[in-house]
Amino acid sequence: MGKRLDGARNAPNSVSRSAPRSRWEEHRARFEAYIEGLVFSEEPRLETLVEAMRYSMLGGGKRVRPTLCMEVAEVFGAEPGLVLPSATAVELIHTYSLIHDDLPAMDDDDFRRGRPTVHKKYGEAMGILAGDAFFGESLTLITVHQEGSPEQVLEVVRELAGSTGVNGMAGGQVMDMDQTGVGGAADPETLHMIHNYKTGALIKSSARIGAILAGAGEEEQAAVSEYAMELGLCFQIVDDVLNATSTREALGKSAGSDAEQGKATFVGVYGLDGAKREADEAAEKALQALSTVDGDTSGLEELALFVRHRGH
Amino acid sequence: MGKRLDGARNAPNSVSRSAPRSRWEEHRARFEAYIEGLVFSEEPRLETLVEAMRYSMLGGGKRVRPTLCMEVAEVFGAEPGLVLPSATAVELIHTYSLIHDDLPAMDDDDFRRGRPTVHKKYGEAMGILAGDAFFGESLTLITVHQEGSPEQVLEVVRELAGSTGVNGMAGGQVMDMDQTGVGGAADPETLHMIHNYKTGALIKSSARIGAILAGAGEEEQAAVSEYAMELGLCFQIVDDVLNATSTREALGKSAGSDAEQGKATFVGVYGLDGAKREADEAAEKALQALSTVDGDTSGLEELALFVRHRGH
Repeated sequence: MGKRLDGARNAPNSVSRSAPRSRWEEHRARFEAYIEGLVFSEEPRLETLVEAMRYSMLGGGKRVRPTLCMEVAEVFGAEPGLVLPSATAVELIHTYSLIHDDLPAMDDDDFRRGRPTVHKKYGEAMGILAGDAFFGESLTLITVHQEGSPEQVLEVVRELAGSTGVNGMAGGQVMDMDQTGVGGAADPETLHMIHNYKTGALIKSSARIGAILAGAGEEEQAAVSEYAMELGLCFQIVDDVLNATSTREALGKSAGSDAEQGKATFVGVYGLDGAKREADEAAEKALQALSTVDGDTSGLEELALFVRHRGH
Repeated sequence: MGKRLDGARNAPNSVSRSAPRSRWEEHRARFEAYIEGLVFSEEPRLETLVEAMRYSMLGGGKRVRPTLCMEVAEVFGAEPGLVLPSATAVELIHTYSLIHDDLPAMDDDDFRRGRPTVHKKYGEAMGILAGDAFFGESLTLITVHQEGSPEQVLEVVRELAGSTGVNGMAGGQVMDMDQTGVGGAADPETLHMIHNYKTGALIKSSARIGAILAGAGEEEQAAVSEYAMELGLCFQIVDDVLNATSTREALGKSAGSDAEQGKATFVGVYGLDGAKREADEAAEKALQALSTVDGDTSGLEELALFVRHRGH
C-alpha cells in the first residue's frame, strides 16, 4: 500500500546538487538539535519505551513537515525557533503514523531508513505503544511548551485534530489498505482522496501551524494551505514515478515495488507520462498559491521546484 | 496483565440495589444520547472505520469517566451538559486504549463486554486504526465543540496530554506488560505506579476537566484530583479482590484469572485482607479529599462508597 513521505528515499543532499540546502538545512539542524533534547521520562521502568521512541524519532528523514512549518513562520515574520514545539509535535505524529503503518497487521515492513522497524527491534506491543505515546507527547509539546496566545495554541491543536482522525491520517490509511490489490484500477477520485487524507492533511497542517503561530491572517493561512496541499500531492506523485522508474540502487528499495504489491498509485492510474503531467500541474499550483502572499516566499518556491525535480 | 476500568464487570445496576442510580444514571443517559449522535464521517469509503468506532464506543460500560466529569462540573455550579464534548473525549480516549490493549500483541482478548473485540470483528489493522482515529476525534470534540474560554479549553487538552503519553496511559501499559508473569512478586511501588499511570491519570483528568470547565479554582481542582486518584485506586483494588474471590458467574469472566496469568495485583502483593484494607484506606482518602470542597459533594461521596462496596 501507499506510503507516507518518510524521507526513506531521496534525501535532498543525496540526490541533487540543486537542492535548496542553506535555509532548509538550517531549519533542519535546529530541529534535530531540539528533538535530540527530548527525553519524555527518566523513570527507569520506562527506559525501553523512551529508547524505542528516540530510536524512531531520531532515525533520520527529510523532516519536510517541521522545516516547512518553520519556513512558513519565517515568511510571515516570526523567528523560526518560535514554532519548534509545534513543528516537533507534527513530526512526532508523523513518526507515530509510520510506526503503526509498519506493523505486521498493516504494511508489515521490517526495515525503514535502512534500520529495523520499531516493532522488529522492540516487539509489536512496543510498536503500538510507542506510537500511542507519541500522540500524548505531541500534545504536551504544544500545550506546555508552545509560546503564543491561548487562541493560537488552541488553533494549533484544532489543526492537528482534523488532520489525524477519521478525516485525516487514520481514515487515509484505512482507505489506502482497502485499495491495496486494486492497483491501476483505482479511480482518480479515490486516489486523490487517499493521498489528501493520509499525507496531504498533515502537510497542510504543518504549513498552517507556522502561519497561525506567526500571526498570519485567514487569507495568508489559506494561501499556504493551498501551497502545502499541492506540494504534498506533487511529492507523492513524484514518489510514485520514481518507484516505477528508478533502479533499486538509486531508490534504496525495490524499484517497481508499488506495482508488485498492487498499490493504487498515480502511475497506475494516469500512466507514467500522465503522472508526470499531474506532478507538473501540482507544482505549478503550489507556486501560484504563493503569488498572493506578501513576504519572501523564495524558500517555499525553491522547495516546490526541488520536490518536482528530485531524483532526475 | 491488568485491565483498565472498562465496565465489563459489575455494572452498577446489575450488582447492588444501593447503587447511586438517580443522578449518575441521569448523567449516563445524557452521555449515551450524546455519543449516539457522533458519526465522524459520512464518506462511504470510511463506512467500516466509522462502524468499528461506533461498535466499540456504543458497546456499553459504566461510563465512570464521563459521568464523573459531569458530576464534578455540577458540584462547581456548571450545567453538566456543558462538559459533554470533553467528557466524551475522555471516554473515547479510554475506548481507544481498550481497543489497543485487546490486540493480539498486547492482551490478545477475543471478547469484551460479552462481544467480540474490535480486532476480532473488523481485523487487526482496523483495531489499530480505529484506536488511532479516536485520538484525533477526541481532540476535535474538545477544540471544536467544547464551550469555554480558550484558556479553559487549552487546559483540558493539556490535562489529556499528560494522562495519555509516556507518563500516563501508554507508559502504564508498558509497565503493566513488563510486570506480567511477576505476579505477587511485584513490589508495591511498581504496582501503584502501574495503576496511577495506566488508569489513575485519566480518571483524575476526568474530574479535573469537569472542575476546569466549571471555573473551579486551583484548590478545588486539587481536591477533586485527589478524590479521583483515590477513587480510581479503590476501584482497581476492589476489582482485584473480586477477581480473586468471585465466582465466574458473578464476574462475567474467569474468576482467579489474574493469578493464572501472573498479573501484578493488589491481592497478590498485599494478600486478600491486606488488599481490602488498602481499598478501605483509598475510599477513606477519597472522602477526606472532598471535605475541603465548598459544594454539594453527596454524589461523589455516594460514588466512593459504591465503588468500595460493589459486588458484596
